[in-house]
Amino acid sequence: MAGRPLDQELIRIWPSYATYAIAFVSIGVVWVNHHTVLEQCIKVNRLFLMLNVIFLMVVAFFPFPTRLLAENITSSGARPAAIAYGVTAGMTAVMFNVLWFYASRGNRLLREDADAAVVNGISRSYLPGPFIYLAATLVAFVSPPASAVLFGAIPVFYVLESSLFARR
Amino acid sequence: MAGRPLDQELIRIWPSYATYAIAFVSIGVVWVNHHTVLEQCIKVNRLFLMLNVIFLMVVAFFPFPTRLLAENITSSGARPAAIAYGVTAGMTAVMFNVLWFYASRGNRLLREDADAAVVNGISRSYLPGPFIYLAATLVAFVSPPASAVLFGAIPVFYVLESSLFARR
Amino acid sequence: MAGRPLDQELIRIWPSYATYAIAFVSIGVVWVNHHTVLEQCIKVNRLFLMLNVIFLMVVAFFPFPTRLLAENITSSGARPAAIAYGVTAGMTAVMFNVLWFYASRGNRLLREDADAAVVNGISRSYLPGPFIYLAATLVAFVSPPASAVLFGAIPVFYVLESSLFARR
Amino acid sequence: MAGRPLDQELIRIWPSYATYAIAFVSIGVVWVNHHTVLEQCIKVNRLFLMLNVIFLMVVAFFPFPTRLLAENITSSGARPAAIAYGVTAGMTAVMFNVLWFYASRGNRLLREDADAAVVNGISRSYLPGPFIYLAATLVAFVSPPASAVLFGAIPVFYVLESSLFARR
Repeated sequence: MAGRPLDQELIRIWPSYATYAIAFVSIGVVWVNHHTVLEQCIKVNRLFLMLNVIFLMVVAFFPFPTRLLAENITSSGARPAAIAYGVTAGMTAVMFNVLWFYASRGNRLLREDADAAVVNGISRSYLPGPFIYLAATLVAFVSPPASAVLFGAIPVFYVLESSLFARR
Repeated sequence: MAGRPLDQELIRIWPSYATYAIAFVSIGVVWVNHHTVLEQCIKVNRLFLMLNVIFLMVVAFFPFPTRLLAENITSSGARPAAIAYGVTAGMTAVMFNVLWFYASRGNRLLREDADAAVVNGISRSYLPGPFIYLAATLVAFVSPPASAVLFGAIPVFYVLESSLFARR
Repeated sequence: MAGRPLDQELIRIWPSYATYAIAFVSIGVVWVNHHTVLEQCIKVNRLFLMLNVIFLMVVAFFPFPTRLLAENITSSGARPAAIAYGVTAGMTAVMFNVLWFYASRGNRLLREDADAAVVNGISRSYLPGPFIYLAATLVAFVSPPASAVLFGAIPVFYVLESSLFARR
Repeated sequence: MAGRPLDQELIRIWPSYATYAIAFVSIGVVWVNHHTVLEQCIKVNRLFLMLNVIFLMVVAFFPFPTRLLAENITSSGARPAAIAYGVTAGMTAVMFNVLWFYASRGNRLLREDADAAVVNGISRSYLPGPFIYLAATLVAFVSPPASAVLFGAIPVFYVLESSLFARR
């Protein structure tokens, strides 16, 4: 940080702003989705609480790969940083499916009046998650910046898709 | 920090205390205002939740420009630091308007019994926000300390104005 | 930290454990007291919310003087560190009185059925706070370690006193 | 961190991932248990609130020994780091018993309809905690890595046991 004027320094660290926004919006989508899952549940049990703990463990890990990505996107460390980010995001998507299918299988924890269309809609929208992030992570082997762009585009696409869907 | 007695050091870093207070009170006003907005809402939808995520993304960014301002107010970096703070505060004001007009346009998310006078009062008090912070940020090109004083004065003025207004 | 075995290092930093405990219990007492104040209130207004913001601003400042005290208690910086801690604690006590007397003066925000004995008891127990911390801070001019012991003893005394009092 | 490619660095710091998971799951178990305790309580008093503050003080200390363990498990500092972790975990187990027996002794704070079987079940499952962690900590004198494995296994065992138990 030494020896360079602050204004140039603030411009040089633009990847930090980009990854901050990517991670914040991604976790925001996670939060909205988690809210949707819990809204369908009428009760919890110990195992579900512990699955939530493991889910939160993965989500709380995000700042680490986010910072790695911000600091290395323009250097030779871009590939491992992008893979670290992709693995974290992919594990989050896996945990979403674990949480959701544990709660919904045989209506284990769902409300009596849970709407079958909503339940199926959630199932359909969560299942592709791990595969989408796996694909974006594999892109990092070819082009780390391209995978970073995908990491940013996935939650934005999700927001747009589900907002438009909700409107219909 | 080395080589200087602690008492002198604690006095030397006074800009840190000042910016801590400025940022804390500013975010406090944001919190009270956000509370006011949500109080008028009876329901939410996915897009509103995501707008809140983006709003929180801007608010959670405050510690960064606050620290920049604290560390650079007496140096040559004062101008970019003040601009960074002003842009963050201005974006917060913009997001307030986005949230509020999305919720209130055509009473989209408002309570049935939302008082038209209160709704109009909120609209009137939020609209100038982005322009006030834009002006304070432009002042930084002439005098960064003057803009820092404005950043501190704006939320204090807002508190006094709305407290007196509430009393009437 | 370099060049010293970890076990010796963990013993050498005992002031950090002591000040961590002092600050945690002090903030714990603050939390219990704040709970007591809000329990007596039936409504809030904008000015009360903003007073709470300023109150939280002082409470959220605690980690800074706590760390100063931990790192300097055995060095020449002990006096300014103890004064910084005492001033923060004293300001917290002042803000408690501001919050409480704003809420209770003329029953402004209190519940209809607020028990006069409880209200007077709170008033009596908060009023000495600023003076007690002022005294403990002045002790730092003679002996910083003695004032640190007082900073630890005050909340412990408060807990014992109010727990025994509550039992009667 | 300097001079080594990021991918090798990310592999070299594997103890950090392991201890992050151990600590997160341990605190998760603490959270689920604390929830179970509070669920049985119908009221609180000042002393119980303060015991909770001391309990939280111990829980909030976890990141410190966790980081020590992560950074020293493969070095000569492994023993003191494992002991620090074990003492923190043991104190948490002690505080659980203090909280629980304070609340349940003579049904002091319990609900009228608290199920005696549940109350006795909680008592039976909490009492061994301090001794289990004491044993795992003593193992550190022989083999710090072995005690670290135990620190990870204890909460996992607890989750499995209580989930299976809950199913019966």
